[in-house]
Amino acid sequence: MIKELEKVELSNPVLIEGLPGLGLVGKIAIRHLVRQLKAQKFAYIYSPHFPYFVLVSKKGNVRLLRGTFYFWKNRNGKSDLILFTGDSQAQTIEGQYEISDYILKFAKQHDVKMIITIGGYRMEAKEKPKVIAAATNRDLLNKTLKTGAEISPTGSPIVGTAGLILGLSHFKRIDALCLLGETRGYLPDPKSARSVLEVLQSLLDFNANLAGLDEEIAKADKMVTRLQKIEEKRALEAEETRKEEDKKVTYIS
Amino acid sequence: MIKELEKVELSNPVLIEGLPGLGLVGKIAIRHLVRQLKAQKFAYIYSPHFPYFVLVSKKGNVRLLRGTFYFWKNRNGKSDLILFTGDSQAQTIEGQYEISDYILKFAKQHDVKMIITIGGYRMEAKEKPKVIAAATNRDLLNKTLKTGAEISPTGSPIVGTAGLILGLSHFKRIDALCLLGETRGYLPDPKSARSVLEVLQSLLDFNANLAGLDEEIAKADKMVTRLQKIEEKRALEAEETRKEEDKKVTYIS
Amino acid sequence: MIKELEKVELSNPVLIEGLPGLGLVGKIAIRHLVRQLKAQKFAYIYSPHFPYFVLVSKKGNVRLLRGTFYFWKNRNGKSDLILFTGDSQAQTIEGQYEISDYILKFAKQHDVKMIITIGGYRMEAKEKPKVIAAATNRDLLNKTLKTGAEISPTGSPIVGTAGLILGLSHFKRIDALCLLGETRGYLPDPKSARSVLEVLQSLLDFNANLAGLDEEIAKADKMVTRLQKIEEKRALEAEETRKEEDKKVTYIS
Amino acid sequence: MIKELEKVELSNPVLIEGLPGLGLVGKIAIRHLVRQLKAQKFAYIYSPHFPYFVLVSKKGNVRLLRGTFYFWKNRNGKSDLILFTGDSQAQTIEGQYEISDYILKFAKQHDVKMIITIGGYRMEAKEKPKVIAAATNRDLLNKTLKTGAEISPTGSPIVGTAGLILGLSHFKRIDALCLLGETRGYLPDPKSARSVLEVLQSLLDFNANLAGLDEEIAKADKMVTRLQKIEEKRALEAEETRKEEDKKVTYIS
Repeated sequence: MIKELEKVELSNPVLIEGLPGLGLVGKIAIRHLVRQLKAQKFAYIYSPHFPYFVLVSKKGNVRLLRGTFYFWKNRNGKSDLILFTGDSQAQTIEGQYEISDYILKFAKQHDVKMIITIGGYRMEAKEKPKVIAAATNRDLLNKTLKTGAEISPTGSPIVGTAGLILGLSHFKRIDALCLLGETRGYLPDPKSARSVLEVLQSLLDFNANLAGLDEEIAKADKMVTRLQKIEEKRALEAEETRKEEDKKVTYIS
Repeated sequence: MIKELEKVELSNPVLIEGLPGLGLVGKIAIRHLVRQLKAQKFAYIYSPHFPYFVLVSKKGNVRLLRGTFYFWKNRNGKSDLILFTGDSQAQTIEGQYEISDYILKFAKQHDVKMIITIGGYRMEAKEKPKVIAAATNRDLLNKTLKTGAEISPTGSPIVGTAGLILGLSHFKRIDALCLLGETRGYLPDPKSARSVLEVLQSLLDFNANLAGLDEEIAKADKMVTRLQKIEEKRALEAEETRKEEDKKVTYIS
Repeated sequence: MIKELEKVELSNPVLIEGLPGLGLVGKIAIRHLVRQLKAQKFAYIYSPHFPYFVLVSKKGNVRLLRGTFYFWKNRNGKSDLILFTGDSQAQTIEGQYEISDYILKFAKQHDVKMIITIGGYRMEAKEKPKVIAAATNRDLLNKTLKTGAEISPTGSPIVGTAGLILGLSHFKRIDALCLLGETRGYLPDPKSARSVLEVLQSLLDFNANLAGLDEEIAKADKMVTRLQKIEEKRALEAEETRKEEDKKVTYIS
Repeated sequence: MIKELEKVELSNPVLIEGLPGLGLVGKIAIRHLVRQLKAQKFAYIYSPHFPYFVLVSKKGNVRLLRGTFYFWKNRNGKSDLILFTGDSQAQTIEGQYEISDYILKFAKQHDVKMIITIGGYRMEAKEKPKVIAAATNRDLLNKTLKTGAEISPTGSPIVGTAGLILGLSHFKRIDALCLLGETRGYLPDPKSARSVLEVLQSLLDFNANLAGLDEEIAKADKMVTRLQKIEEKRALEAEETRKEEDKKVTYIS
């Protein structure tokens, strides 16, 4: 299930997880960190609970759906990072629990003391998306709230791997924090990922050049504008049609 | 799967189960008992068959979905109580059987001789909801009918954990009784839970101050009234629209 | 999974299976045999692949969904019978294979040399429903065709336990025959069950007083007639409405 | 799960897989090879993940759904062939992984060094359907592209057993190639299968008389033409109806 490509010694590592989900916030955030920090692959997770297809990768090669662990050595003596993302969430309830459990086992083996999971929070954001936080440890949560994140409302559910890891981390005695970026959720949302990364950077004290996300944000904004125009036009036409029909009816009655 | 928080010695305990279901009757009843009797948590059930999300609890903390066992020491020398409720029913067929089996095993370990399960029965109640009873033991059923409960019609199904526990209790040689409160089922129904608790109190001879439920009942009644008004208004408008359209058509033909 | 109530010595037994399915043909046939022959329960199958509810049985008692084996001692020295029916088919693919496998194991333990499965075949029957046969053994099939059954068309699927038992019987070296009665399938069809029982009686040479089914057939016929009248009335009204609307339109154009 | 009918010694065998899928391309291709090469059955795969029905085969006999392995001895001293096809894909995610795994294990046991999987690729083909290729090995892919196949676009998914075998082959150290024939996918498409077989023949250097497929292709073409005419007629009538309605409306307003 887990295939390690390389044995790596890490110093006081923090694991950050972000699988595809609402607005792809988690996946975009991790992908950006991997690129900016030039993190290196060192393990894969495979599972029969991922969807049953393979992807054609570059040059006609083929690969199973999987999750990938990357590591990054922090030269400034602070915590090293383990970054985790993948192609897909597990497709069954049992699979969701199983994958979360595998990630936690892997973390335990590498002596991880803290896990941070990233996801999206369905909410129309005003200008700058907020970051909502929940944690298994009071001090960790308080520290996070000082970076500008807001506390998650009581009773709010956190769906999928980002949530289950927090729920299960207790059994492995690993502290865990969940950061959710506000997002409408139906389109990739790099702006929300940027908000989450800002909180992450304040917390963990590393620099991942978030300006690198701005181009992606501009593209996503254009896409939203385009879709809004299409929608407005459609609404206008529907209105026209309605008026035409009203007119006909008025003639009659 | 089952995590015991505390070893507890109980005297001749009766286990009462109420998970979320129709009208939330079971969950409301158990929650009320826990509060009124000041029962104490002593074990959790976790399962990969519960839905794959976690809940944010008070102060931004997070927890897995779970079932919780509480105990209450009966000072009057009668049976102690074990109370069980939780966040959710299991989401798969196998999960339903598994959870029921875990509850029964736990009961057996604590030398429980009788289990009572609580649920809702879909039926428009006249004024005061009736309580429908079924049991694995004739004497137990007769005793229950004397408290004002009515016998369940033959062939009627009892869905979910409340039913399966009765079906499976036979294999553990534990007597089991199911109490279903009449409810429309689509809204939380504390009035139905109150009816069930009255039967329970007569049976087991304890006092859980049911008046404490009256405020909740008043709130639920208001909610029903409000929804009925909305529905009436909607029906009226639909009728108006229909008349308008009829008029137009009449002009034509 | 299998609970034997009684150890029984059977002589050269044939097992006949009929679970609920199209037109309930299999279940009606077995139920009639059990009643007429006064066959006796001797084992249950329980499974977490049956639906997750229990049934209230007579006098407020409760039971799990299950399959039941009955036996009948044939005084005339011919084969004894094991009859199997139940509340429900398994609800999952794996469950379907598992239940069929359990039935075959049970048959093997009791030294069964032949299994006959009963089901429905979706086909508007002319007057008297035909019986369609398929078998794992050529001689058995030919013998069956001589009793008036017809051979199943090549490529035709047999869904559920009635089919899987035939497919899996090969691995247990037990001959198996499937008898499907023509039925529209959406209502209980005792007439189709009667046709199947006639073939069964010729094959196995016992007498189960099929006249006992005639009352049930008369009831089912009445039900069909009533539903047809409702349908005709509905069609007529739809036609009227259509004409009315046509008239309006004609006025206009 | 796997039942071997015969022990066979094969020389340097290549396994070619084609289960039912888009346009039945894989199944038609394998079926044609089996017939033309007079390949012989030597093993079955059974699984509780196949659909839960059986098929009536010739003469009223019955069989489980299954996959079948055939072998063909290549007299010209080149690679022998193992051909695999079946009645159905597995119906669950886990089943898909399991079946692919079984095929790979079987291949490993028979010392297969290369597997070729066949499927359909949803694309309106111009005249002659193209063949899209992906592979786990660069040389193998290049060799395939020289026979006229085209490289699969990056990021494109390959669904089902044809894809998973490539994804999983890595763990068994077997090279694997996937050939997908362009097809609209909703009807059996022997023309697409022919294109794939041409690539296969160039690659493996055997002769399977593809002209034998032409009759089947003609039939499929006729079917397509007939369906197109039905569709055109339907579209025309819809247009007529629309015009009639427009006329009516024009009179009114």
